[in-house]
Amino acid sequence: MLGKFITFEGGEGSGKSTQARLLSEQLWRVGVHTFITREPGGSPFAEALRQVILDPNMPPHSALSEALLFYAARADHLDNTVRPALNSGLWVICDRFIDSTRVYQGIAGGLPGEVIDTLNEMIVSPTYPDLTIILDVPAELGLGRAHSRRVDKVNPDTEADAYEKRDLAFHWKLRDAFREIARAEPQRCVLIDAGLDERVVFSEVWRAVQTRLFALAR
Amino acid sequence: MLGKFITFEGGEGSGKSTQARLLSEQLWRVGVHTFITREPGGSPFAEALRQVILDPNMPPHSALSEALLFYAARADHLDNTVRPALNSGLWVICDRFIDSTRVYQGIAGGLPGEVIDTLNEMIVSPTYPDLTIILDVPAELGLGRAHSRRVDKVNPDTEADAYEKRDLAFHWKLRDAFREIARAEPQRCVLIDAGLDERVVFSEVWRAVQTRLFALAR
Ligand SMILES: Nc1ncnc2c1ncn2[C@@H]1O[C@H](COP(=O)(O)OP(=O)(O)O)[C@@H](O)[C@H]1O
Ligand SMILES: Nc1ncnc2c1ncn2[C@@H]1O[C@H](COP(=O)(O)OP(=O)(O)O)[C@@H](O)[C@H]1O
Ligand SMILES: [Mg+2]
Ligand SMILES: [Mg+2]
Repeated sequence: MLGKFITFEGGEGSGKSTQARLLSEQLWRVGVHTFITREPGGSPFAEALRQVILDPNMPPHSALSEALLFYAARADHLDNTVRPALNSGLWVICDRFIDSTRVYQGIAGGLPGEVIDTLNEMIVSPTYPDLTIILDVPAELGLGRAHSRRVDKVNPDTEADAYEKRDLAFHWKLRDAFREIARAEPQRCVLIDAGLDERVVFSEVWRAVQTRLFALAR
Repeated sequence: MLGKFITFEGGEGSGKSTQARLLSEQLWRVGVHTFITREPGGSPFAEALRQVILDPNMPPHSALSEALLFYAARADHLDNTVRPALNSGLWVICDRFIDSTRVYQGIAGGLPGEVIDTLNEMIVSPTYPDLTIILDVPAELGLGRAHSRRVDKVNPDTEADAYEKRDLAFHWKLRDAFREIARAEPQRCVLIDAGLDERVVFSEVWRAVQTRLFALAR
């Protein structure tokens, strides 16, 4: 049987990596085999491109060029990791996916949504997520968490480097954009208040997974 | 006045770099200001991606991923080099462009032509070449030239590294594909027998440029 494809989206420090891990553990507990992956990255070539994408020394470039790099990585990640895992029956949990491109390069970067639609048809289709969990926190809270994550070095993660420097208005714009996606695609997406304790947030995540995917899957 | 956009295409060692230089010199001689550039590369970000694209240590990846990388570089090259130069009235001479993608990733790599069409509409349009000169040589001859270029180190050029290793049947396929493009797009393309002495080849190149572009341009 084909596995389910679940993506986590949201701003820096919204708790994507934390909730992805909690969901994976819970799914194993109830007998569902899972595989956690992330973007950009998740396959050898895509991880090599991740270095390029996140390298602060790369010359400046447009949102279009950046999106094409992400899709070069995404095509590889889908072909070599996501689709084989789904086909083998694993549930794939992915930390960031197409909605991050729409928010960062699209809404914040100015790339027209139609360009992203076309790239999705070309590269992602038919492997759209069965469920996308959008973790919603006020920008200050997320940035504060991401910052202390780095300072504590409990869970080192360089992901935020490229964007963390941007001003607060930028991060509020990202948050609004994620909320807008949740509103526009209610079939695929669920918006969860992620400002609470991680166990409280997880109970909402788990409820969404059960409601949306379990009736169908079992 | 807008400059003209001329691209050189053809297999390894067909004489693209040589003819691009000769054409640039001749155009300056008759009072046309030119700018020579190349792909992949031609702008700071695109040259950085060129390193990635030609790096033999990159993990294996599909023709689709590779094409997306080329278009990430191409979008930047167009925005930051080709279009500004054309807008300032320079004639831009580019060593490889969209037809190399169609041949290497498309026909030889198996990527459907429609994907390349879509990427061209998204990224290249409306900056299609005014004239594309396709240099046609038997595969053995081109490879022999590329090989001696490397051995002599007179004109060091690492471009061929990634493909030169492939077998002769592959290189014949590339040659056929370039010829097919010339047949399919006679308005934009001219096919030139590039197996002769470089001055003889250049006289054909120059004739094509005069016939196709000068009546319009002056
Ligand atoms: N609900 C929560 N409340 C408080 N801190 C949290 C919560 N969820 C995650 N954290 C902490 O915040 C930081 C960022 O969480 P993380 O899961 O890495 O976010 P993201 O992957 O979205 O950037 C980490 O240090 C994490 O332990
Ligand atoms: N018409 C020609 N006859 C013989 N050698 C040539 C000719 N044109 C170019 N060469 C030589 O062949 C090698 C490859 O030419 P080059 O212009 O670098 O080809 P490309 O850029 O298409 O790979 C160079 O050493 C060049 O000097
Ligand atoms: Mg994370
Ligand atoms: Mg050359």
